[in-house]
Amino acid sequence: MPIATIEWIGGIDGKIKIIDQTLLPDELKYVFCNDLKEIYHAIKTLMVRGAPAIGIAAAMGTVLGIGKKKSKDFEEFMKDLKETTSYLASSRPTAVNLFWGLKRMEDTALKNSHKPVEEIKNILLDEAKIILEEDKEICRKIGENGQSLIKKGDSVLTHCNAGGLATGYFGTALALIFAATEKGKTVHVYADETRPLLQGSRLTAWELKNAGIDVTLICDNMAAHTMREKKVDCVIVGADRIAANGDAANKIGTYGLSIAAKAHGIPFYVAAPASTFDLSLASGKEIPIEERDPEEVTHIQGKRIAPESIKVYNPAFDVTPAENIKAIITENGIINDPTTEKVRSVILRFQE
Amino acid sequence: MPIATIEWIGGIDGKIKIIDQTLLPDELKYVFCNDLKEIYHAIKTLMVRGAPAIGIAAAMGTVLGIGKKKSKDFEEFMKDLKETTSYLASSRPTAVNLFWGLKRMEDTALKNSHKPVEEIKNILLDEAKIILEEDKEICRKIGENGQSLIKKGDSVLTHCNAGGLATGYFGTALALIFAATEKGKTVHVYADETRPLLQGSRLTAWELKNAGIDVTLICDNMAAHTMREKKVDCVIVGADRIAANGDAANKIGTYGLSIAAKAHGIPFYVAAPASTFDLSLASGKEIPIEERDPEEVTHIQGKRIAPESIKVYNPAFDVTPAENIKAIITENGIINDPTTEKVRSVILRFQE
Repeated sequence: MPIATIEWIGGIDGKIKIIDQTLLPDELKYVFCNDLKEIYHAIKTLMVRGAPAIGIAAAMGTVLGIGKKKSKDFEEFMKDLKETTSYLASSRPTAVNLFWGLKRMEDTALKNSHKPVEEIKNILLDEAKIILEEDKEICRKIGENGQSLIKKGDSVLTHCNAGGLATGYFGTALALIFAATEKGKTVHVYADETRPLLQGSRLTAWELKNAGIDVTLICDNMAAHTMREKKVDCVIVGADRIAANGDAANKIGTYGLSIAAKAHGIPFYVAAPASTFDLSLASGKEIPIEERDPEEVTHIQGKRIAPESIKVYNPAFDVTPAENIKAIITENGIINDPTTEKVRSVILRFQE
Repeated sequence: MPIATIEWIGGIDGKIKIIDQTLLPDELKYVFCNDLKEIYHAIKTLMVRGAPAIGIAAAMGTVLGIGKKKSKDFEEFMKDLKETTSYLASSRPTAVNLFWGLKRMEDTALKNSHKPVEEIKNILLDEAKIILEEDKEICRKIGENGQSLIKKGDSVLTHCNAGGLATGYFGTALALIFAATEKGKTVHVYADETRPLLQGSRLTAWELKNAGIDVTLICDNMAAHTMREKKVDCVIVGADRIAANGDAANKIGTYGLSIAAKAHGIPFYVAAPASTFDLSLASGKEIPIEERDPEEVTHIQGKRIAPESIKVYNPAFDVTPAENIKAIITENGIINDPTTEKVRSVILRFQE
């Protein structure tokens, strides 16, 4: 079944064990990060990637940073802690989950300021482990809630990597597939290769194959033809940010896929934790779309494939309108035919 | 403006000048084929590619094969000619235009069997040049007929390479853009990179940039987002085979593009010579779709980008239904909202 992307090994003077995702799909290699510099390097060079996984790495990395420090009092401890978190924050300065993970560690320290420093260190280690466990639990629940949408023998089409490799375990979109498989439902998956960075071919195809799930790789532009000519029962994708009305930003290509699914009457599902929702945004129109380096399009693995100095448009994400989404699957439950009202009711369900 | 892909240089003992397309977009290098083996190699290794260009290369290659032969009579000449055409036919055994070009040369020789051998050789050289000129003329007419659909300042989205590089000159889809530009209408083009073989980034982006046309490269999966977020006034693509009802087979990804264009109310045009129509096929359902080597998807320029022995689905073409096509532009005229009746009326216009 799916694979553990990140783990803490040992006690307070322990280490982080991660899969080096830069070597996939060629090699499954585990790497141990023994100190702050090593986990910083791992985050920066995308050895560990995916929003939830980065949050976990940040929290565990904080423990690496302060674990062996001999701070004499809480004040000195907090200075060391802040130094650690500032350093880690610079590893991937646009990753929201990175800051979230670091802030949660700082907040935990502050809440325990009255305790001895050595005890706080262990509380922080526990907190990092809790973050991992919470993430696993959320992914499991997403999988369990969503697997009911998959029937035995279904063919599922997915895009990018919303799998265990991007989370603590199990993933979001792929969680539905893993959970359905656990229930004895055999599932076949079409994985879009997902240009420009090829997360589909490099990671999703590898992750599913590794988990023993029947997977067929296609280029992104083959999806519509595949929907018409082959059996595709549903499309399941993850999300990076979801607006209050259910409009969902995800990896570039998701929007086009939702149009093709609609044209073929194929249900289109988004699987994402409640933390992905930003209820302050009324609709997807308010979600900013990052444009990335033209080299991602003009070069593949360092080799140029396009004319020199050609103009490139390289949006990293696109927004799928709620009207193209049959359901959003969260750990709190399923939002069918999402509207602002239904999103609020499910997302705020477990909040005061 | 566009570039000449293939030319005959000199008299009956002359040579063929081609662009070595395998070096694009890195280098614009002309190669001279002085004998039969050299043009065979050029066709086989895709130095010259694109259905019409291959037909021209076959005809000119036939002249290279028989030009220097000292045949004593017509019988011996025909033996030499057949040897030449059989050899050339094996260079790309699935290219229909190759056989068409070779057969036309044989037919021309047979029609002139009463003439001296040296005269027949010159007639064949003229015939090869006529084939090139006819192709240029057809492409020009497609461009002139279609350019009326483009307004000054329009942004056109295209897929694969239906440009001058695939024909004698001017192309089919790109002919509309070149012709509009000649009329003083500035046009901006979005070029899909066109996985798996990247004809869009390697050839179309290069060809347009080289012709001084403003071009922006995108990945195939960015097209739908680009249609919504940017100004895209129409989509123009070529075709490999068109059924009697207007259903058009073209490079994989075209069908998905037509769905996205429809969803955004953007007109979708197909530009193709009358010879592309196969009126014996009632609809696109009868067009066979070639599946190609998985390595095209799993490797880019020799480098593996997907897990070893992963399953791949790699259809080379897809079929865009006539209902998604606003117009088909041919050298005989424009077929608006194509139906079987309208297709027959335009395609059979200049035939007995």
